[in-house]
Amino acid sequence: MRIDIMTLFPEMCEAVLNESIIGRARKTGKVELNCINIRDFAENKHNKVDDMPYGGGMGMVMAIQPIESCYKSLCEGEEKPHLIYLSPKGKTLTQERVVELSNFEHIVLLCGHYEGIDQRVIDTIVDEEISIGDYVLTGGELPALVLADSVCRMLPGVLSDDLCFEEESHFAGLLEYPQYTRPAVWNGLEVPEVLLSGNHAEIEKWRRKKSFEITRERRPDMFSKLEFSKKDLKILKEMDEKAKE
Amino acid sequence: MRIDIMTLFPEMCEAVLNESIIGRARKTGKVELNCINIRDFAENKHNKVDDMPYGGGMGMVMAIQPIESCYKSLCEGEEKPHLIYLSPKGKTLTQERVVELSNFEHIVLLCGHYEGIDQRVIDTIVDEEISIGDYVLTGGELPALVLADSVCRMLPGVLSDDLCFEEESHFAGLLEYPQYTRPAVWNGLEVPEVLLSGNHAEIEKWRRKKSFEITRERRPDMFSKLEFSKKDLKILKEMDEKAKE
Repeated sequence: MRIDIMTLFPEMCEAVLNESIIGRARKTGKVELNCINIRDFAENKHNKVDDMPYGGGMGMVMAIQPIESCYKSLCEGEEKPHLIYLSPKGKTLTQERVVELSNFEHIVLLCGHYEGIDQRVIDTIVDEEISIGDYVLTGGELPALVLADSVCRMLPGVLSDDLCFEEESHFAGLLEYPQYTRPAVWNGLEVPEVLLSGNHAEIEKWRRKKSFEITRERRPDMFSKLEFSKKDLKILKEMDEKAKE
Repeated sequence: MRIDIMTLFPEMCEAVLNESIIGRARKTGKVELNCINIRDFAENKHNKVDDMPYGGGMGMVMAIQPIESCYKSLCEGEEKPHLIYLSPKGKTLTQERVVELSNFEHIVLLCGHYEGIDQRVIDTIVDEEISIGDYVLTGGELPALVLADSVCRMLPGVLSDDLCFEEESHFAGLLEYPQYTRPAVWNGLEVPEVLLSGNHAEIEKWRRKKSFEITRERRPDMFSKLEFSKKDLKILKEMDEKAKE
């Protein structure tokens, strides 16, 4: 898979993408990630990428020409890459969409800045607008990096073990159970006894119960969408009976 | 305001925080931002920060000691700084919470990695768990940077004009109207005439109408929470009448 990030801050994006799990996936060729400076495509004297908004108002708007030329330079193959504009107006990102996007061959992420980009870019070349959440940021770089990170980790061979992500929060619509590591006692605080028991069936049951508890308490919206096995229903029944005691 | 980020990837965080608007705010002393390497506080031979999870399972869990020692080193003053753990289990970040957090004097952001951190850290020193959205990432760094960015831009003097953020998406519970800049015609696509008219009252009305349209269409959940002025209600009535034609 190939992901291109169109940005005014390529060094910052590179710094993030060279670290940790994604950095390793890049080095081993599991994914191709490129950061492209939109400014390099400005066809004017001072490499200007923005201009004043028509109709007045604060801030500057990113102009069409540099963005369009930059995007065209990335359209080498026969198929047009999927262009995503990171924008507060976009559809809110979910893990479901992350999984879908990880099946694309080539996506391009467009980072806005200032007061956004000329609407005609969105109307003509942008395929999809995505928001990472209901808060305001100084630019589209962090959202693009969030999207790239979430998509990359779904690609085969990127996580050290393919099984790893199956158990994780939001993948199965459940929040994760609590985790503990050594020492067994810290400042008088003990690790739950069952985890030291070596009884794998009991440990699995305890973890599932904890996941149910925490999801039901913190994210009733997620909990209501879950589908339960017979085993799960038994665990839930036990939880409810214990709560009544 | 002071924000400390506890992380295993301080260079990556620094690279992001040195750029653009936040970088400028740091340089001019509008905000103090520090990235602290948790690994520097590990009291063992190999600066190990993680260990196997009790009860078995994939991945590694970040151990208590380095995190606790790192956090203690940041508690210099009389008041305990507000410790936020970036976690998929946390409450989803909203602009409302961003504004509240921008009033804190000192917050510390704890980035997890691997399979999370020992639950006893969360139970004892963490004040709040925050999630930036319903998707899975490789670590807590990007969420911490998202939070830091959103909070910093609310601090006085960080944005070039205090008025700037008042009109922005999610601040007033409305999505932004479309923006346009030069040229007035691009590949046959024209800027809406009203924006070239110089009639400020009409421009304002057009923009408000566009914001209503786009918010109603894309985010009915946000639209339903809006409170309208008499002027707004008139605009909405006109929109509905035009839709009927």
